[in-house]
Amino acid sequence: MTALEHLRSKLAEISDLNGAASVLGWDQQTYMPPGGVTARAEQLGTLVKLAHEKLVSDQLGALLEAAREEVSGLSGDSDEVCLIRVAQRDYDKARKVPSTLVAELARAASLGLEVWVNARETADFAAFKPALQKIVDLHRELARCLGYEEQLYDALLDQYEPGMKTSEITRIFSELRAGLVPLAQAISEKVASVDDSVLRRHYAESQQWKFGLDVLEHFGYDFARGRQDKSVHPFTTSFSVNDVRITTRVDERFLPTALFGTLHECGHALYEQGISQNLERTPLASGASLGIHESQSRLWENLVGRSHGFWKFFFPQLQGLFSENLSSTSLEGFYQAINRVEPSLIRVEADEVTYNLHVLLRFELEVDLLEQRLSLDDLPAAWNGKMKEYLGVVPPNNTQGVLQDVHWANGLIGYFPTYSLGNLISVQLFEKAQRQHPSIQEEIEKGQFTLLLTWLRDHVHLHGKKFLPAELVERATGQLLQAQPYLAYLRRKYSEIYSL
Amino acid sequence: MTALEHLRSKLAEISDLNGAASVLGWDQQTYMPPGGVTARAEQLGTLVKLAHEKLVSDQLGALLEAAREEVSGLSGDSDEVCLIRVAQRDYDKARKVPSTLVAELARAASLGLEVWVNARETADFAAFKPALQKIVDLHRELARCLGYEEQLYDALLDQYEPGMKTSEITRIFSELRAGLVPLAQAISEKVASVDDSVLRRHYAESQQWKFGLDVLEHFGYDFARGRQDKSVHPFTTSFSVNDVRITTRVDERFLPTALFGTLHECGHALYEQGISQNLERTPLASGASLGIHESQSRLWENLVGRSHGFWKFFFPQLQGLFSENLSSTSLEGFYQAINRVEPSLIRVEADEVTYNLHVLLRFELEVDLLEQRLSLDDLPAAWNGKMKEYLGVVPPNNTQGVLQDVHWANGLIGYFPTYSLGNLISVQLFEKAQRQHPSIQEEIEKGQFTLLLTWLRDHVHLHGKKFLPAELVERATGQLLQAQPYLAYLRRKYSEIYSL
Repeated sequence: MTALEHLRSKLAEISDLNGAASVLGWDQQTYMPPGGVTARAEQLGTLVKLAHEKLVSDQLGALLEAAREEVSGLSGDSDEVCLIRVAQRDYDKARKVPSTLVAELARAASLGLEVWVNARETADFAAFKPALQKIVDLHRELARCLGYEEQLYDALLDQYEPGMKTSEITRIFSELRAGLVPLAQAISEKVASVDDSVLRRHYAESQQWKFGLDVLEHFGYDFARGRQDKSVHPFTTSFSVNDVRITTRVDERFLPTALFGTLHECGHALYEQGISQNLERTPLASGASLGIHESQSRLWENLVGRSHGFWKFFFPQLQGLFSENLSSTSLEGFYQAINRVEPSLIRVEADEVTYNLHVLLRFELEVDLLEQRLSLDDLPAAWNGKMKEYLGVVPPNNTQGVLQDVHWANGLIGYFPTYSLGNLISVQLFEKAQRQHPSIQEEIEKGQFTLLLTWLRDHVHLHGKKFLPAELVERATGQLLQAQPYLAYLRRKYSEIYSL
Repeated sequence: MTALEHLRSKLAEISDLNGAASVLGWDQQTYMPPGGVTARAEQLGTLVKLAHEKLVSDQLGALLEAAREEVSGLSGDSDEVCLIRVAQRDYDKARKVPSTLVAELARAASLGLEVWVNARETADFAAFKPALQKIVDLHRELARCLGYEEQLYDALLDQYEPGMKTSEITRIFSELRAGLVPLAQAISEKVASVDDSVLRRHYAESQQWKFGLDVLEHFGYDFARGRQDKSVHPFTTSFSVNDVRITTRVDERFLPTALFGTLHECGHALYEQGISQNLERTPLASGASLGIHESQSRLWENLVGRSHGFWKFFFPQLQGLFSENLSSTSLEGFYQAINRVEPSLIRVEADEVTYNLHVLLRFELEVDLLEQRLSLDDLPAAWNGKMKEYLGVVPPNNTQGVLQDVHWANGLIGYFPTYSLGNLISVQLFEKAQRQHPSIQEEIEKGQFTLLLTWLRDHVHLHGKKFLPAELVERATGQLLQAQPYLAYLRRKYSEIYSL
């Protein structure tokens, strides 16, 4: 066996353990009876521990070195060279963090989650503060272990968006904020011109489910290599390129919940189903980053799923399923309703225009916290101040403000900006695909998505985690990651809807 | 940490890996999309391999030795002493079999299964013979590795029924055969006196499902620690004492399929749910043997579920759900229909009386094959000859004869006799419970099962795998394992139904 073959077999074992852990996670959120929770935590803990032990082993380090010699003649974008590069990155990162810190982080996240649930219920930030302080402190330590060139926050960001720098995000987000705040402001003066009450009628779950499956089929989601189930929080999970599952939730009193949840997860799943079979059982068989992943979910959810062309084909079908609710609604009226914009308090309920302002706020606050320019005592006021500044609304309590998201409580710091990066990238990719295939728009209006999906397959999906996200964007679009295309898209779309 | 604590933590890891593998197996048979099969095989292979490596490690051997010293003052039936005894047994067995043989057995079983599927379809025993010969030869080698005192077959049997001897089964089964053959013969002359056509009407799946869940609730199956799903072959699986799941299949044209399948699996599941919480994450958190497990499934399926008293309570409810089919059927008529006896060709479709004759036949043949008293060339004829002798029927082809069961193809030799041991033990346990609580019968007639379940919990379930099956039977009933109680039960029940 060559060193590369030996390395592959070791990485395959790690991949199997991670895949098994994902199956256990999927089951936990879909079908597991409540009694299973304690044993499940132990089983997941053991799988994660074994995968970690295998990743940080001296043997793996030696194999990486030996395999690198073997592939020295191959091109830098060959599967083999990329595999060794990414595996080395994972190995280095894992070796840098002492297992005591890993354990402390896990404990702090688990405690944070528990405390947060109660604090959120009672809107009591003070009760959450000590747990959050611990999480912030441990993340400063984590960043020091991982290392960074410019800013401490870079090290945390790099976990979710490899190669991305805080300074670059700051620059891009400033541009984004400068465009979004006035746009949201302009729309907020005309909020009443769009009515979405039609979405709040009673929509039977079984019919919603049927419609969702139909759109999934049309998009090209492969049910021979996936399935959709219900869960409290929608998610996508992959156990293999050939087994990529999504979940959704259904609200019978609000049509968009299941509908756009399904389209969003479908975007993630199309990505995972599209990764090259050659990368199976390697660390390359996943998305390039959270940002790239989100670009796929947002592309199918928003750029396709909230577009006029999409509904030209699908609205008559939806009317057929819900004639009582929709027979007297026009395509225009429905299109406007699903694109209604209103500055509001809760990120996960926000529209396309205001969503990124919620993300910007979190990014700015978490950088300041990590760099110790902001103390936790001042966090709720800072949150509310930015809400007022960016969105013109102020939370009446911390439940609807600083306590609304689970991320910090659960030890996810450096994660938020990837949501907005995904939005920006989605437009860059979508527009490039349309420039190369101008008939994509016509296809969408006929309920066909082959050209679009094929382009995404070739330029994004197939490569898995071979390239850094910035490199992938440049390869696919010829551009650097930037805010202007996204802003232009929003201005175009919403100027029309709101007659700005 | 004491050696015992250290041992416990190592065994817990093995238990976690096995539990995770069981989740993956459950998913594979219930919800996995077809594309997932290759990756799933790899994931399961890795989990099984890691669990095996941990089991046979020198470290575990040393811990077993050290822990045994620590518990030398404890009683022989303490959890600790039993744990060390059972873990040592597993360790010794696993160390005795070279990993090359383990791999060869796995390959032979996988190939055997593949070949068998086709051979069964075409009734072509000759096509299956080479694969089966390989499996038999490897099992002779396996038996030699495992070791035995009396007969080679003992070593194989011991994997499924620890401590049981071939000579003892031969003795008990002779008695059983002597009683069953004339009984089946006597009934076969009066087959026409019972009509089961009422069971072959159209029974809607959703209503069948509902009735099954209702009986599960009544039996005491805990849905907070389990659930029922559909699968092609019904099974029970346990990921923890607190997550024990069953599956069933539904045939809308034959009521008994789902109904008795559910009751059967419920029996297995009540056993697993009843194991002491103290045994969680140890090798003691499972049934004592396949025979004891089957005693539980058959007790609830047959001794309860096919009894007159049970239907006194449940038949009116079933009539309510299927009034069109059942309103003109009497309790007596229904009771007779579900207990119809007819000598037939297929084991899995056999009734209570003839079922064990199918098992006896397989046991006798596999012992003769393993001990080389029978060659594979003569196997089909030997099969057909015994069918004629025991049941008075002869398969028209090998599909309905020697090729009907998957066990041998899949490398399960020494497994069949446990089905009949389970039947015998079920009656011994049920009668002992009734002697101690004469009102069990009255309770059953009211749809109550607490007394029965509590007795089984205390005398069987709680102990998990602490005791050898023979020891468990003796502790619970005060008797040795024997055939007469079962024969007497059958004679009593079927003399009445068939007016013998």
